Amino acid sequence: MTQARFIAGDWGTSRLRLFLCDAAGAVLARAEGPGVAQAGDVCARVLAERAEAWDPAGAPLPAILSGMVGSTIGWREAPYAACPVRASDIARAALRFESEGRAIAIVPGLSCRNPSGVPDVMRGEETQIAGALRLGPELEQGRQLLCLPGTHAKWVLLEDGKVIHFQSTLSGEVFDLLSRHSVLARGSEAGSTDHPAFAAGVALAKTQSQAGLLHLLFSTRSRQLAGEIPKAEAASYLSGLIVSADVAGALALFQAPGPVTLVCTPALGALYGRVLQEYAVPARLIDGDKAAHAGLVALFASLEDLGE
Amino acid sequence: MTQARFIAGDWGTSRLRLFLCDAAGAVLARAEGPGVAQAGDVCARVLAERAEAWDPAGAPLPAILSGMVGSTIGWREAPYAACPVRASDIARAALRFESEGRAIAIVPGLSCRNPSGVPDVMRGEETQIAGALRLGPELEQGRQLLCLPGTHAKWVLLEDGKVIHFQSTLSGEVFDLLSRHSVLARGSEAGSTDHPAFAAGVALAKTQSQAGLLHLLFSTRSRQLAGEIPKAEAASYLSGLIVSADVAGALALFQAPGPVTLVCTPALGALYGRVLQEYAVPARLIDGDKAAHAGLVALFASLEDLGE
Repeated sequence: MTQARFIAGDWGTSRLRLFLCDAAGAVLARAEGPGVAQAGDVCARVLAERAEAWDPAGAPLPAILSGMVGSTIGWREAPYAACPVRASDIARAALRFESEGRAIAIVPGLSCRNPSGVPDVMRGEETQIAGALRLGPELEQGRQLLCLPGTHAKWVLLEDGKVIHFQSTLSGEVFDLLSRHSVLARGSEAGSTDHPAFAAGVALAKTQSQAGLLHLLFSTRSRQLAGEIPKAEAASYLSGLIVSADVAGALALFQAPGPVTLVCTPALGALYGRVLQEYAVPARLIDGDKAAHAGLVALFASLEDLGE
Repeated sequence: MTQARFIAGDWGTSRLRLFLCDAAGAVLARAEGPGVAQAGDVCARVLAERAEAWDPAGAPLPAILSGMVGSTIGWREAPYAACPVRASDIARAALRFESEGRAIAIVPGLSCRNPSGVPDVMRGEETQIAGALRLGPELEQGRQLLCLPGTHAKWVLLEDGKVIHFQSTLSGEVFDLLSRHSVLARGSEAGSTDHPAFAAGVALAKTQSQAGLLHLLFSTRSRQLAGEIPKAEAASYLSGLIVSADVAGALALFQAPGPVTLVCTPALGALYGRVLQEYAVPARLIDGDKAAHAGLVALFASLEDLGE
């Protein structure tokens, strides 16, 4: 039977996912737990309770953890590693300490001055990027634009496998807030790229980008009143507008005409892929969960290469 | 003593304000009441109860009402008047009927195809525009850009006193939602144009307008983490970013380099005036409440000129 070698943990604000891994990173067992917002001061205890069942007698397995566990609201703060960085630089900057006899490594977030000229940060996505490089080795070559959609989406420029810089966008959060609280999409069905209104939203934000998203959002309501889009498709229209504005801004900022690699759920991948298509930009998907796991495995391997 | 001639009512979603007026529009008495969201099916009763105290014996005074009272959630729907329109056209399109012996006129909203090429609507602001034309007669000359800031702000182009078209922006609602629900400005003081962070937000949205607001919002958080803006000033920064994006979009859409007339509260006027200054565009303020009242008076006079 394969031997357990280390524990990999994806520990965000709202959820902990632990994986018991062999030396090659294959998953031997899984466990879940509370996010750092709930675990707070007892992160050490939360990890130990789950890990002890996996430890060989008297020899706690090392653990590598990424996500908000390394933030000021997490277990211990792992300071951001400054771009440009390679995956091996990320491993080198990990915060390492011992807890109840267990070697812990917390993956640092990344910081940069973004293409808009202001500071930017990520925490957790750096591990997905390291995983994407492992899962898609061709990303190690040349100039590559990655997109990690989400509440605070990240657009990331790689050059020869190095993270040069990145830009965060609020597309996910703005869509979520407007669809839940505003009058714009009240009474709508859930958003779908299959609705004709979705394509109408994408097209408007593409052709009217100089107006800016603020000036286009109200059309979600006024075009319903004018009978141009059905009420049931309002959320789809709003989603099309917002993701299209996100894509238009990113393409203007990064001037990277090549294909975009999406690292996310298949659903978000389909959404962004469809919008990128309208901009004549090819896209491909790397599953976000697989990337997170591959990233933890790759970063653990880098730590070992550093001589642990 | 001056004689009461008519009743003017500003009847929005959340509030009714009634004014007893003489023939010249001077206010003889005031009353308040519930907005249409609450008054619902009993708008007729709500108005009658307040107006009867003012009526001369056996002769109900005519009433002119504007705002959401004319919407599908109001008393009766007053269909939108299509731009381009003059104030006299708005009066002509009023919805007129009798209620318990009282002549009622409900001011219609306006509709247009906006500079972004899609349908747009307003309801209530058309009365403030009519009032602004009364209070600032120089607005009757040439090309004039008006801005009515608010939850759904309106930018309005006048040519020789005629409303040509207008564009709605979601600046007020986006600021409100993000400052209440997002992590961006958590723990901040209330926004103030006096905070240095306000000017920093205005400047970033001005110089980085091609990136689009979605790509700039996260800097509210990341610049706090980097120590570039104090946490206490985060709401000011966010306000600067959003209003600057609103102004940049409007100036691109309307290409009206002349002064902008702001129709709003003094506080919003100071906010927008300060941002317009950064764009080298002069601004002047017409008080929004005064404009709403003057508009009702002007529209009532137009109704009388129509031969009532």
